[in-house]
Amino acid sequence: MAFDRISILGVGLMGGSVGLACKRIASNSRIIGYTRRAEELKLAIELGAIDEGISDPAAAVAGADLVILCTPVGFFDKMMSTIGPALKPDAIVTDVGSTKRRVAALAAQLLPKHVRFVGSHPMCGSEKHGVVHARADLYDDALCIITHDDSSDPSAQDQVEQFWKSLKMRTVRMTPELHDQLTADVSHLPHAVAAALVRLQTSQSLQLAAGGFADTTRIAAGDAVLWRDILLENRDNLRAGIVRLQADLQQLLEHLDADNAAAVQQWLQSAVDVRLGFRKSATQ
Amino acid sequence: MAFDRISILGVGLMGGSVGLACKRIASNSRIIGYTRRAEELKLAIELGAIDEGISDPAAAVAGADLVILCTPVGFFDKMMSTIGPALKPDAIVTDVGSTKRRVAALAAQLLPKHVRFVGSHPMCGSEKHGVVHARADLYDDALCIITHDDSSDPSAQDQVEQFWKSLKMRTVRMTPELHDQLTADVSHLPHAVAAALVRLQTSQSLQLAAGGFADTTRIAAGDAVLWRDILLENRDNLRAGIVRLQADLQQLLEHLDADNAAAVQQWLQSAVDVRLGFRKSATQ
Repeated sequence: MAFDRISILGVGLMGGSVGLACKRIASNSRIIGYTRRAEELKLAIELGAIDEGISDPAAAVAGADLVILCTPVGFFDKMMSTIGPALKPDAIVTDVGSTKRRVAALAAQLLPKHVRFVGSHPMCGSEKHGVVHARADLYDDALCIITHDDSSDPSAQDQVEQFWKSLKMRTVRMTPELHDQLTADVSHLPHAVAAALVRLQTSQSLQLAAGGFADTTRIAAGDAVLWRDILLENRDNLRAGIVRLQADLQQLLEHLDADNAAAVQQWLQSAVDVRLGFRKSATQ
Repeated sequence: MAFDRISILGVGLMGGSVGLACKRIASNSRIIGYTRRAEELKLAIELGAIDEGISDPAAAVAGADLVILCTPVGFFDKMMSTIGPALKPDAIVTDVGSTKRRVAALAAQLLPKHVRFVGSHPMCGSEKHGVVHARADLYDDALCIITHDDSSDPSAQDQVEQFWKSLKMRTVRMTPELHDQLTADVSHLPHAVAAALVRLQTSQSLQLAAGGFADTTRIAAGDAVLWRDILLENRDNLRAGIVRLQADLQQLLEHLDADNAAAVQQWLQSAVDVRLGFRKSATQ
């Protein structure tokens, strides 16, 4: 591990799992954890996710070579303002937030010029939360998106990418703008739709729910505060996705009204083909 | 088992699993299978799903005490017309179709008056199809909806209910109208939405897809012909569900536009609460 001292801000499911994954590769890095609740910090140490817990964010980043923001994205502005003065020169700051345009803008605005920010979005997680659910293998084989723009330091990008690779992740680089557009389609829109599908049920219809419903709506149990911030930050791309979804469902209804069995079948089959292809490539 | 001779029309995943489940309880019933493709019939015998395969539907139901329609619902009219003259007096006919109003209407119109029809909808299945994926435990602990109307014979209802219970299913009775309304919300709408979510992806966005997307869209890989018929038959209830879904997503967008974090969080939290409650009750 290239970093002697790593600070994890927010030691919940994601942050705790980063700590456990670092420990697993027997790195010499010292892992410092910060989180608001004292008992969560204590538990993180007991579980072996961090070496040391510090209940003040600024103190927790002092001397750190790598700082990883793992709090909900809604706290990023406060967190960056707080830690800014305490960061050492050339420290690298990254995050695990699910949206990337705003965090890049906040970093440019709130972090000192002498530190280097690179955005990260590990595409994994769980509907569970809290360090008690942290797992050393949470990141294994999952994809980490590294976001960069013209101002990103190439060496910092390389080091952050290497860090996630050392935790067994695959990586890809793109701009924050493209990240937010693609994740709206593949993650944020499915979340909003799953929640809406749950919301329109009644106790009577839920009695008939089976495995299909359970799968389709599993993500709707995800933390409401976390997802509130994601949807607020990516609302423009979410809106674009909802518009396209509605237009496509309208298309289906038109085929149904026209009793056009061939068109309905083709509408469905195109989804079957893509979904079967996705399953195959995802398990390779 | 109260039936000496059971005919399964359509020996695929559902029909084959009925046969395997009947065999498992060591019943004395003789199981006759019909399916269009000769190799599928041969495979069903090899797998032990049926005792005898007959490639003509009318011949396959001769002498049967219980006939179970397991073909896609789109074939029910042709199947009922074909078998009608061959059914013995007082034979009970049921089905495993996913919509229930149309099959009840078809039965009233196409089956002879001397046979007794009771609708069934076992709420289980798989996105896989074919007898090769049939499983003796497919129906275990799942819910079977028995549909009845004023013309349904009470004794036949009881016998059909008892049949599914003997295959370890839980049962509930309701009218075909209520069935179609509730299943649109809990099954048909989620299927259409999952397919639409797949259809709006690009190869670029799919590269970022993770476990959440996989779960949410798993059912979109389901057989397109089967689902074509379901959606065509239940289009009115599906439309009502799509309208409610769109209105609720619109509500979310309004909260987002108003930057109303509390309202967004509450919108999400109500789904979390219902979904966690469902998970708990579903695993009890």
